[in-house]
Amino acid sequence: MTDIVEIHVTCPTLEGARELSHGLLDGRYAACCHIGKEVDSRYLWQGKKERHDEWPLTIKTRADLFDTCCEAIRKHHPYETPAIVGFAVDHVDAATAEWIAEVTKA
Amino acid sequence: MTDIVEIHVTCPTLEGARELSHGLLDGRYAACCHIGKEVDSRYLWQGKKERHDEWPLTIKTRADLFDTCCEAIRKHHPYETPAIVGFAVDHVDAATAEWIAEVTKA
Amino acid sequence: MTDIVEIHVTCPTLEGARELSHGLLDGRYAACCHIGKEVDSRYLWQGKKERHDEWPLTIKTRADLFDTCCEAIRKHHPYETPAIVGFAVDHVDAATAEWIAEVTKA
Repeated sequence: MTDIVEIHVTCPTLEGARELSHGLLDGRYAACCHIGKEVDSRYLWQGKKERHDEWPLTIKTRADLFDTCCEAIRKHHPYETPAIVGFAVDHVDAATAEWIAEVTKA
Repeated sequence: MTDIVEIHVTCPTLEGARELSHGLLDGRYAACCHIGKEVDSRYLWQGKKERHDEWPLTIKTRADLFDTCCEAIRKHHPYETPAIVGFAVDHVDAATAEWIAEVTKA
Repeated sequence: MTDIVEIHVTCPTLEGARELSHGLLDGRYAACCHIGKEVDSRYLWQGKKERHDEWPLTIKTRADLFDTCCEAIRKHHPYETPAIVGFAVDHVDAATAEWIAEVTKA
């Protein structure tokens, strides 16, 4: 296991995904953010099936910045409960690990 | 590590991915299913390189429902061996964890 | 935890992603490669925010082939430091595990 985490969250608009990325990069909370093409999101909410187009955001940062990223995401996200999940990176090449440590907030 | 898992499987048609999502949500085997844009899938099968367009399905649910989801996926999936993999979610914010526990089958 | 890993890397061109896939499959370093639709990639590099369209490549293989895949990726990738990360697959159904073990290099 490394000390790097990949965080996944979805946004209801492309513009919102872009703004969130800038907030995370400007604050040096994350090393990179990938905004994917919209996904067809189907989920259970208050007893009903809901369906929305959402833009997936994939964030790479240090594991010890997960909570800071969650806070920043919740502050700027329009949902009451944005689903935020983080995956520990198990394998990484040395150059990538060095880059992530270097560009993110001490 | 949390008790949440993210399951990845691909489907040969968009319609098939939608039907699979509904089956998983209706059975409350999963809290949410994201159907992504089609991917260019290249793989080794019976000694040859194969290429297909496939629709990726990303499923969030409780880890103890992984096998149940696999069963449901295999029952409805046209492939003999759909590649089904699950990743333990290492970090999650409390509100997301509560939501997943609440909406999935006890 | 299984002995399977999912590797993520992005490529600056679709053609590059295809060539990389073929190199990995031809060498039997990987069982399958999914090339996704381009992502809007934003990242910190040498003190500045950079933005590029990149094609995400998702690679499934055995965990003990991670370093071999990294070597092959770096050899064919145009970036000086391609960000290569690997996630241990925690859950897999037996048929998928058997297939990956069978088609990848001993």
